[in-house]
Amino acid sequence: MAADGEGTTDSSSICRHAHHAGWEDAVSVDASDIEEHSFSEWSTSNSDTRPVAVVRPQSTDDVSIIARICTKYKVPMTPYGAGSSVEGNFSSPFSGVCLDFSEMNKIIAFHPKDMDVVVQPGVNWVTLNNDIKSSGLFLPLDPSPTAFIGGMVSTNCSGTNATRYGAMKDYVMSLTVVLADGSVIKTRHRPRKTSAGYNLNGLFTGSEGTLGIITEVTLKLVTVPASYGVALATFDNLRNAASAASDMIRSGTPVAALELMDETQMQIVNKNGGAGGRMWSELPTLFIKFSGTEATVKDNTKAIQTIAKSFACKAFESASNEEQMDALWSARRQAYWASLAVRDEGTQVWSTDVAVPLSRLADLIEICQTRASKLGLFNSIIGHVGDGNFHQIMMYNPDIPEQKHAVTSCVNRMVEDAIAMGGTVSVRTATQIHRMRFHTLMQFQGEHGIGLGKKVS
Amino acid sequence: MAADGEGTTDSSSICRHAHHAGWEDAVSVDASDIEEHSFSEWSTSNSDTRPVAVVRPQSTDDVSIIARICTKYKVPMTPYGAGSSVEGNFSSPFSGVCLDFSEMNKIIAFHPKDMDVVVQPGVNWVTLNNDIKSSGLFLPLDPSPTAFIGGMVSTNCSGTNATRYGAMKDYVMSLTVVLADGSVIKTRHRPRKTSAGYNLNGLFTGSEGTLGIITEVTLKLVTVPASYGVALATFDNLRNAASAASDMIRSGTPVAALELMDETQMQIVNKNGGAGGRMWSELPTLFIKFSGTEATVKDNTKAIQTIAKSFACKAFESASNEEQMDALWSARRQAYWASLAVRDEGTQVWSTDVAVPLSRLADLIEICQTRASKLGLFNSIIGHVGDGNFHQIMMYNPDIPEQKHAVTSCVNRMVEDAIAMGGTVSVRTATQIHRMRFHTLMQFQGEHGIGLGKKVS
Repeated sequence: MAADGEGTTDSSSICRHAHHAGWEDAVSVDASDIEEHSFSEWSTSNSDTRPVAVVRPQSTDDVSIIARICTKYKVPMTPYGAGSSVEGNFSSPFSGVCLDFSEMNKIIAFHPKDMDVVVQPGVNWVTLNNDIKSSGLFLPLDPSPTAFIGGMVSTNCSGTNATRYGAMKDYVMSLTVVLADGSVIKTRHRPRKTSAGYNLNGLFTGSEGTLGIITEVTLKLVTVPASYGVALATFDNLRNAASAASDMIRSGTPVAALELMDETQMQIVNKNGGAGGRMWSELPTLFIKFSGTEATVKDNTKAIQTIAKSFACKAFESASNEEQMDALWSARRQAYWASLAVRDEGTQVWSTDVAVPLSRLADLIEICQTRASKLGLFNSIIGHVGDGNFHQIMMYNPDIPEQKHAVTSCVNRMVEDAIAMGGTVSVRTATQIHRMRFHTLMQFQGEHGIGLGKKVS
Repeated sequence: MAADGEGTTDSSSICRHAHHAGWEDAVSVDASDIEEHSFSEWSTSNSDTRPVAVVRPQSTDDVSIIARICTKYKVPMTPYGAGSSVEGNFSSPFSGVCLDFSEMNKIIAFHPKDMDVVVQPGVNWVTLNNDIKSSGLFLPLDPSPTAFIGGMVSTNCSGTNATRYGAMKDYVMSLTVVLADGSVIKTRHRPRKTSAGYNLNGLFTGSEGTLGIITEVTLKLVTVPASYGVALATFDNLRNAASAASDMIRSGTPVAALELMDETQMQIVNKNGGAGGRMWSELPTLFIKFSGTEATVKDNTKAIQTIAKSFACKAFESASNEEQMDALWSARRQAYWASLAVRDEGTQVWSTDVAVPLSRLADLIEICQTRASKLGLFNSIIGHVGDGNFHQIMMYNPDIPEQKHAVTSCVNRMVEDAIAMGGTVSVRTATQIHRMRFHTLMQFQGEHGIGLGKKVS
């Protein structure tokens, strides 16, 4: 490429370097292809700029070649996985090329006896778990069913299972990473235990593509539990529910998931015709999952019931056969969809994401609910309370300045309160809220990453 | 300090900058103080060089001032905690000043309801657990009882509890770190869940002081289990014992610890008069710990027994009252002491530290035992097999070249085999083996860190 190309983005530089067999097929400059790879309806943040090309590498070597060329000509690179980011992670605000990993979707090696698997970043986690099902092993995280392993590593994904199983960083044993200049590093060998050398797995996991491009991942797997259980506890008020949740965690009783829905969320489920073939008490409700041997599940359910009772729990139901468990969990599963279904035309959803130390969880939830209720707008609370993390969902019309201002002020105060309580927040500014219509395509989970959407500028 | 001081180490530079109230007391140039802080009988690696001064900071600010001065005058800094390193972590090969953290030994804040505690690096973990005992919480790691939190973070310590509870990196919620130039960073706020920003906790944990000096640590605590159980299973041969251990992990049955001792280790315990008031079968033996509710412990013990039986286990004993548990675990606890007690005059211990993927554990253990047995020297195998990690202990006389050569060659081949199996090793070269006499002061654990002792030069 001529010197005048330096610092600019020109798809021809990529195409002209396409000496590799098949490179022509791997580089696309098709307008709709480019559009799909840099804009999405379900992202909270989109850039007006587009990449000049979409490249589909098939191997670590391909990615290394692309990075070498891009660095030489100062062309920005944006990795793209499932495209399910809700925070603009695959926006290309400085143009450049988009690296689409959909063709790097192979399971490279599965070692059931070592309880690990080596995969390319374009592998979908649901597909992976189905493929290895007969081994009795699985990757225990549960982000959006659309998610690819590469994105799950990049965002350090979690989900409702995080209470028991932790986050993606706890399952990454080794990474192959292509650095910006095209050099390839491998973070570790495969054994489950090592404390030698810097913990590069932990550094690259969650770094959202800012440190390098992940091209191969060795994942630790765990054994599918022998049995499961689900329980549900309703409370007179939100404070009791949140306090009970904190106490359940502090008791050390192993729960697989611990989720909270406030009375508004439960009402909405009923408004949508119920869930699991029934209507629900419109009270603050805790949803709890258990896993382990049959006796362990029974034991833990009993321990959790005792705690619920000590917080004046109104009703406690539990189930351990699959059908009943599904029914009990259905209200939790449908919560977010149900919220969107009751949304008025023109309304947008502002969903917050804060976490505080356990002892302040009930305080903050109560403050936020009281404050938001005064606005006269829809608001509800739903949370992965096992981690001290919850979301307050507020709906407002962005074309009505008073509503926009009220919600903004409410969120700002929530953020201030959370930080004052020693908490952590993912901040999203009002101007970044748009096109939330398909947020619901994503499973609503603990931390959605930062991306452009929650980057503090 | 005069310009001629640049790049040299001169204790007077520290003393002359001692404008801070009480700095004179904080800086020691006493020869025996210096000797104690840079040489130890129990370290595998000692340098001939000594620091010029030992400084005892009392706060993050003190450490920041020290770092600023040292960086200005290019004086090396070596942090010193409990001094219990077996790998030369506190050697000062380039002289400089030693920072002794024994006066930064305060519990700054304990939040039982949040299940966390904020401590200075000079806090001893046993003291910490005793101080917070009444809360029902504890830090579940078990390195040497002498260890300080600062060193535990720096080396990402583990121990026999790692099978259930993981390593130090899983308990570090936030760190205050003084960088080389004296700047102070805090890695995180306190909540248990966050995936925003780089995982600096994971990077500093295990970095052994190479990236910064840790001055404050927020630790996640866990609930003390309601009950415990201990079991012991003996096998006809080592392969069956190791294979059973791998299967126990793969079964997903939650075990708190899973340790292996070979027939030689069991013989040695008996030679020393037994343990726990009895003599033991001189067979390869697995020691297993359980924790949880009473029913969970019972359930898990049964599941483990079934697996042991499928590997032709000769005997299976279990206990759940404290006295009997202590007795059953006593042989494991005394293993290393017993080995040292039978050691001949002039003999040194070479203890290896390798980990391989679970499926190769039995293979490698068998190969190593067979190979070492041909040398006619003492050798035994003991391991945290729950992680695929084991140690082979060999004794030899370093003054007899044939013995030294034989052991070296044996270790080299073990290392090659482990790496060929996709494993990881901590390498220690023969020339670095000396003064192992008090190795036994340390609890013999999974990974002892790298330090100078296992640094590949």
